[in-house]
Amino acid sequence: MKHLDVPVTVHQTIAVAMSANTTTHTSDDGSNRSSEVTHPSSQVVHFPADAPLTLDCNKELAPFSIAYQTYGTLNKNKSNAILICHALTGDQYVASAHPMTGKPGWWESIVGSGKPIDTDRFFVICSNILGGCMGSTGPASLNPKTGKPYGVDFPVITIGDMVRAQVRLIDHLEIDQLFSVVGGSMGGMQVLEWAANHHDRVFSAIPIATAAWHTPQNIAFHEVGRQAVMADPDWCGGNYHAHGKVPKNGLGVARMAAHITYLSEDALHSKFGRNLQAGSALTFSFDADFQVESYLRHQGSTFVDRFDANSYLYITRAMDYFDLALEHNDILAKAFTGTQTRFCVVSFTSDWLYPTRESRDIVQALNAVAANVSFVEIESNKGHDAFLLDEEVFFGTVRGFLDSASKKRGLS
Amino acid sequence: MKHLDVPVTVHQTIAVAMSANTTTHTSDDGSNRSSEVTHPSSQVVHFPADAPLTLDCNKELAPFSIAYQTYGTLNKNKSNAILICHALTGDQYVASAHPMTGKPGWWESIVGSGKPIDTDRFFVICSNILGGCMGSTGPASLNPKTGKPYGVDFPVITIGDMVRAQVRLIDHLEIDQLFSVVGGSMGGMQVLEWAANHHDRVFSAIPIATAAWHTPQNIAFHEVGRQAVMADPDWCGGNYHAHGKVPKNGLGVARMAAHITYLSEDALHSKFGRNLQAGSALTFSFDADFQVESYLRHQGSTFVDRFDANSYLYITRAMDYFDLALEHNDILAKAFTGTQTRFCVVSFTSDWLYPTRESRDIVQALNAVAANVSFVEIESNKGHDAFLLDEEVFFGTVRGFLDSASKKRGLS
Repeated sequence: MKHLDVPVTVHQTIAVAMSANTTTHTSDDGSNRSSEVTHPSSQVVHFPADAPLTLDCNKELAPFSIAYQTYGTLNKNKSNAILICHALTGDQYVASAHPMTGKPGWWESIVGSGKPIDTDRFFVICSNILGGCMGSTGPASLNPKTGKPYGVDFPVITIGDMVRAQVRLIDHLEIDQLFSVVGGSMGGMQVLEWAANHHDRVFSAIPIATAAWHTPQNIAFHEVGRQAVMADPDWCGGNYHAHGKVPKNGLGVARMAAHITYLSEDALHSKFGRNLQAGSALTFSFDADFQVESYLRHQGSTFVDRFDANSYLYITRAMDYFDLALEHNDILAKAFTGTQTRFCVVSFTSDWLYPTRESRDIVQALNAVAANVSFVEIESNKGHDAFLLDEEVFFGTVRGFLDSASKKRGLS
Repeated sequence: MKHLDVPVTVHQTIAVAMSANTTTHTSDDGSNRSSEVTHPSSQVVHFPADAPLTLDCNKELAPFSIAYQTYGTLNKNKSNAILICHALTGDQYVASAHPMTGKPGWWESIVGSGKPIDTDRFFVICSNILGGCMGSTGPASLNPKTGKPYGVDFPVITIGDMVRAQVRLIDHLEIDQLFSVVGGSMGGMQVLEWAANHHDRVFSAIPIATAAWHTPQNIAFHEVGRQAVMADPDWCGGNYHAHGKVPKNGLGVARMAAHITYLSEDALHSKFGRNLQAGSALTFSFDADFQVESYLRHQGSTFVDRFDANSYLYITRAMDYFDLALEHNDILAKAFTGTQTRFCVVSFTSDWLYPTRESRDIVQALNAVAANVSFVEIESNKGHDAFLLDEEVFFGTVRGFLDSASKKRGLS
């Protein structure tokens, strides 16, 4: 492994928990982007113009920035670092309050002092993905050529590009090998990408509720979301920043559709059933009579306050493009040839977005190259979102695997 | 059973297969509604102002019209009539070309001379549902009070209301008892409604790929579709007819989202996989790279040419409201107390929209009241849409059940 021999600037800001609903403001460029795009509340590493990131689309991105959070302390050997990769609408605030919503970190249940991913033992890194909107370079960032937000001039990126940007961050932190890379859903795709294409940098890997390629059904749901965004006149052909608009309706519909896929039918049954909103009678109108309607509308409307619509397009596209076997004549095992990484593959029984059979495909590929792999299918009725929720068996699995891997790695 | 003792006018028009894409024109009221709304290419029965339909919302609808097609010949005893109930986006053209698209009838595979629903033996009736847009009164019809399309002034209707309107049609045709009522999806809901609340009018019933109540997941998907339509500025608060607009984008997105639920993941795999549109490389753009994207876009764009957006809102709402057990303290069996109807309940293994367990609920309820019921779960990888496709075992099931029931009914 080689560290990049280029100068980087680290820009540290003080995290300030902003009050909710103050998510956008008029930026220097006159748009109403979130201030987190340009001035994130986390650490940022800026890679200058002469250190471009070569993308899968054959374009170069420069300069670019990666915003990240860290928790815990890096040991002397720099051997206790865990990189957590976030999902589609996640961010770097894995174990600390979101600066815009003030809500707790999205994985505080599993990351923290004494938690399964124990910040007393491990140095936890979580960066906002390339293409995101929380401080890493993405379509809402300023295009240095124009001084205005990229919009749809941002290049279409891939999971591979996201991970190459993360590699640059890890280089910057002068970490040769990550003790573990962990992530669920799209985070799990990044984990697999790390393991496949940067395998000497990864001692262990935990891909959770994920897949090695996006299925046509996955693509179909994403395409609906993109069409909803792009159909919104306030999307302005991707140039909404310049017009001081936000395609809230389209993005809200996209989020609503996606959110259904995150939950199991069982979870919807036990959470809502056919319960009515006011607890009373049908209104014979198009109001949100049913609790499930109200819940979905809420999911849609709160999401648009914190997320950039173009980021949503780019990130879903990256997921759709993901196919780890493509460059190996559709033989997934070949992506992992020679791997020394220890794997713990996790799926959830009621996850119909990334069902267990897709985890089995990963496990079979790893077995085919005699990789060190354990596979746990967790019994849960919570659907895909189970990986974000309190699932004791899941917690125990992660804790146990990291304990065992630490011993192998010689960590205390 | 009593026939309604009111005068009705029958308006017969000659079916003219219009060329595709000539689906809307500027109507007398200045809007761009389909001519099929006001001048359907099928038979229509007009129920006058003094013969109102009392709706579940406690409003009265009058006058109202029901457009319908018939196939085959009614026998002397009027004992060979089969009513086919169509699904959400279906129509009365069950076995004849659609007047707007020129495409074959939506169920020609099963309805016709020598087919399982044999028009040489049976008199087949199929009416456009109340709330539809193919000639039966719905939100695109003229509101007699204003002379303009109802739009969202149309009352919110239920499956019960749709069936009550069908009962009026059957009364008009002077048929005491239907030999059978048959339908899939929302058509199956109507079948169940007939069997539960008009049981002396139904000798046999075939509810297919359906449920006795809409689940929260069903409601959730519909709500996404409705929000997509209503978010489209061209919806104009439901008054798009008056503005000469059509919320094509919103309705297209709604159709795309719904269409995913009609197909199984297996069907998507075998139909499209991750195949690229041009058979070539990824474009690194938001074009429809994948065949499944192109297919969905096509589904969306062709649908908006033939369907009224407000009808889509009203009909999905009716489905969401459907809960046959609601008036019986959630005990579904009580809805069928004393039934003499013979049932054939059909489900498909890969249907995740109305999965087999929901058919089992119906069968268990029927068993609980000692009804005459057979239940067939058809092995199919085609998802919910299987009921519209060539499924030999399904065809054999329908043919066999109708043969057996005809003998019991004394039909030759």
